[in-house]
Amino acid sequence: MKSAIYPGTFDPMTYGHLDIIKRAANIFDNVVVSVLDNKEKTPLFSVSERVNILKEATKDIPNVSVESFSGLLIDYCKERGIYVIVRGLRAVTDFEYELQMSQMNRKLSDHKVDTVFFNTTLKYSYLSSSSVKQIAQFHGDLKAFVPDFVADLLYERYKNK
Amino acid sequence: MKSAIYPGTFDPMTYGHLDIIKRAANIFDNVVVSVLDNKEKTPLFSVSERVNILKEATKDIPNVSVESFSGLLIDYCKERGIYVIVRGLRAVTDFEYELQMSQMNRKLSDHKVDTVFFNTTLKYSYLSSSSVKQIAQFHGDLKAFVPDFVADLLYERYKNK
Amino acid sequence: MKSAIYPGTFDPMTYGHLDIIKRAANIFDNVVVSVLDNKEKTPLFSVSERVNILKEATKDIPNVSVESFSGLLIDYCKERGIYVIVRGLRAVTDFEYELQMSQMNRKLSDHKVDTVFFNTTLKYSYLSSSSVKQIAQFHGDLKAFVPDFVADLLYERYKNK
Amino acid sequence: MKSAIYPGTFDPMTYGHLDIIKRAANIFDNVVVSVLDNKEKTPLFSVSERVNILKEATKDIPNVSVESFSGLLIDYCKERGIYVIVRGLRAVTDFEYELQMSQMNRKLSDHKVDTVFFNTTLKYSYLSSSSVKQIAQFHGDLKAFVPDFVADLLYERYKNK
Amino acid sequence: MKSAIYPGTFDPMTYGHLDIIKRAANIFDNVVVSVLDNKEKTPLFSVSERVNILKEATKDIPNVSVESFSGLLIDYCKERGIYVIVRGLRAVTDFEYELQMSQMNRKLSDHKVDTVFFNTTLKYSYLSSSSVKQIAQFHGDLKAFVPDFVADLLYERYKNK
Amino acid sequence: MKSAIYPGTFDPMTYGHLDIIKRAANIFDNVVVSVLDNKEKTPLFSVSERVNILKEATKDIPNVSVESFSGLLIDYCKERGIYVIVRGLRAVTDFEYELQMSQMNRKLSDHKVDTVFFNTTLKYSYLSSSSVKQIAQFHGDLKAFVPDFVADLLYERYKNK
Repeated sequence: MKSAIYPGTFDPMTYGHLDIIKRAANIFDNVVVSVLDNKEKTPLFSVSERVNILKEATKDIPNVSVESFSGLLIDYCKERGIYVIVRGLRAVTDFEYELQMSQMNRKLSDHKVDTVFFNTTLKYSYLSSSSVKQIAQFHGDLKAFVPDFVADLLYERYKNK
Repeated sequence: MKSAIYPGTFDPMTYGHLDIIKRAANIFDNVVVSVLDNKEKTPLFSVSERVNILKEATKDIPNVSVESFSGLLIDYCKERGIYVIVRGLRAVTDFEYELQMSQMNRKLSDHKVDTVFFNTTLKYSYLSSSSVKQIAQFHGDLKAFVPDFVADLLYERYKNK
Repeated sequence: MKSAIYPGTFDPMTYGHLDIIKRAANIFDNVVVSVLDNKEKTPLFSVSERVNILKEATKDIPNVSVESFSGLLIDYCKERGIYVIVRGLRAVTDFEYELQMSQMNRKLSDHKVDTVFFNTTLKYSYLSSSSVKQIAQFHGDLKAFVPDFVADLLYERYKNK
Repeated sequence: MKSAIYPGTFDPMTYGHLDIIKRAANIFDNVVVSVLDNKEKTPLFSVSERVNILKEATKDIPNVSVESFSGLLIDYCKERGIYVIVRGLRAVTDFEYELQMSQMNRKLSDHKVDTVFFNTTLKYSYLSSSSVKQIAQFHGDLKAFVPDFVADLLYERYKNK
Repeated sequence: MKSAIYPGTFDPMTYGHLDIIKRAANIFDNVVVSVLDNKEKTPLFSVSERVNILKEATKDIPNVSVESFSGLLIDYCKERGIYVIVRGLRAVTDFEYELQMSQMNRKLSDHKVDTVFFNTTLKYSYLSSSSVKQIAQFHGDLKAFVPDFVADLLYERYKNK
Repeated sequence: MKSAIYPGTFDPMTYGHLDIIKRAANIFDNVVVSVLDNKEKTPLFSVSERVNILKEATKDIPNVSVESFSGLLIDYCKERGIYVIVRGLRAVTDFEYELQMSQMNRKLSDHKVDTVFFNTTLKYSYLSSSSVKQIAQFHGDLKAFVPDFVADLLYERYKNK
């Protein structure tokens, strides 16, 4: 059974992430979406909030589960016994960073953990969690970018800021 | 059962192609390597020579088969009932071309045929069929770039030119 | 009155070109779409066929006219008394080539002729005249890429090949 | 009457910005240069200082005015009734970021607000507000990069740091 | 006698840096490796620690010396009477930033100080000081990336964090 | 004594090439400019014409000599006992191709032959032999791009075409 991990910050998940999740779920038997718990950053949503958003958004896709991890991705892959990482590619700058990460991960795992890339669906190619947060901050329209319940959480969060 | 098609010109196959084939064969149940029969180009090796080279080089990988096709890739995918295309990415210029092709193929197939990308293993990242042919032409050393039997075919071919 | 020239090969015009024409026509008082008559290339459609396609496709945009030119773009701009060139940008490789051309044109005109760039509308970002011709050759569906009358001309042309 | 907005941080304005302003003023009837008041950043110069620098530097260009704005650019465009954004492109990394922003702005405005790009004049292509600040900090020569009165303001500012 | 300066942050030096140092030492009579003392950043290792690591790692290369500098690179070059800067290039994003810096440095020195670039050896092309620090933080294996004594210093440093 | 080879097609030499030659001659004891005799291409100028143009243009630089070669660059380097290749970089697309060639050359020479890169001087960054030929063909002004005697040769050549 072929499983894959889709790691990320997901602060918050956008339709761009959801598109990659669905396409990976078409190809792999199981897809573990895993939220990186990075102690050095100050995200808008906590790890458990981000996990819950992803769980809600993927509840109808049977072969997707949602988790979180801290530390090195490669250690987490070994621990979970999953040897394929899934990543999306939007642009050239993404491409170079992702390529370096995937080379590093192959080296650190003695070439056991490989990465497969999906190109972003065109209509989400300009989309990022940070642009979504910026729009939310100024009460812009989010319905093309995130599910409604995520938009509500974003507006709520910025009301208190 | 998840199958994937790895299409290309393979004139001739290099260790860079073989690396992508092996890594795809680790992830997919079946990998069909398919040589494009492009009537508008004048390749060094005929379609059947290129198919034979690939067959010889992949004979020990049980879930890999080798074929050829002409016409639109997307028609060939439908005909074969395979909905995943595999491609390797070496560099930024590759990336843009490949991304445009994969968007076109998703559009032409009503989003049914998707493309997954592998990054090239570093030691093959500067390798291409055309650089291999150029080296062969001047009797340079090919052993790091293609299997020995392919090197012999290349030297032989250029002797007669 | 501000006029602009949109030069190109247009062999044939696609919806990607038409999108740039419409957006340029929103900004400039007049837009002259001009087909490059390049003696060194062998296009699928003659210069007059390409001009006619563009005329038909833009007949409802009052401030657009269609012409052809040969020689240096900068000489043609001077002759027509138009000092703005319009170009579309799809990708990074486009960007570098276009940037070099625009620098060359500014130099050759003593900085009198400037270039303004539009980014391609996302849904046309993978589209090119050559991919359209390749699809036409194998009777693929063109309705998302060119107007119907252009598709018919393409199928007709390849029937005779 | 065609107007355009040239938004930016301008901390401080360089000759690179001034070049884009002049070229946009050649093409559009009015150019509104507008300083982004971003509460989350700590610029070297206040919004009113940055506006004053731009006013002084553009005082001889009759169709240029200087303002400031906060919030989403697209809301500001609607409020001012201006539907064209002007941006300069220096390099590939600029290009990708600017392209994503322009796609986002078209989406947020129902394709009403468009962006046109100018390539940077070669002699300013390595120039940025942050490199200018770094040079000022160590008393380097600024006369090729900013007007003299801006250089004086920069040296003055860093004397007190 | 041709000398060159190889400036950088080196926090800490990796095998990627050491590779550039050795290749520069093959070409230039003397190579001065110089650690940038940037007061605005908070590095993991102090300037003198970084200098000592470089001295230890290069002790067997007779024509390499190690120093530190603060302020503008171009002033430091003039002070040391060295007119060639050496830099490594890993990727396209590197390339653009480095190109802008080298153009700026040529301008600031009246074209007296030039920059020569080496491409990174493939096996180090995904390597950076920050990825090394991230791996150290989670006790990952560093032996392919930095000399053993640097790995020990890194583990030690993060133990106390 | 450190020597370097600057290989190229030089059909014909432009001020961009001459700039790289001069800057390489500042750094290396000897610079051998070498014209590639590529039997598969049909250049405008013969190998001996291209060599003569380069000889005339570099006659006042004592440490520059001009030659030609055919076959693999790496064999020519070994034959001449020169282990440094000099190349200019204009743009990102250049960069990727050049990087792949330099990796190939290091591999083919057991890491004995290295490549150093110079960035193109800004005012020549849009310049190429092919754009110069295109301008010559239509009698455009060449004085900013090639020496006068090269411009005359170009106009003469196209008169007969």
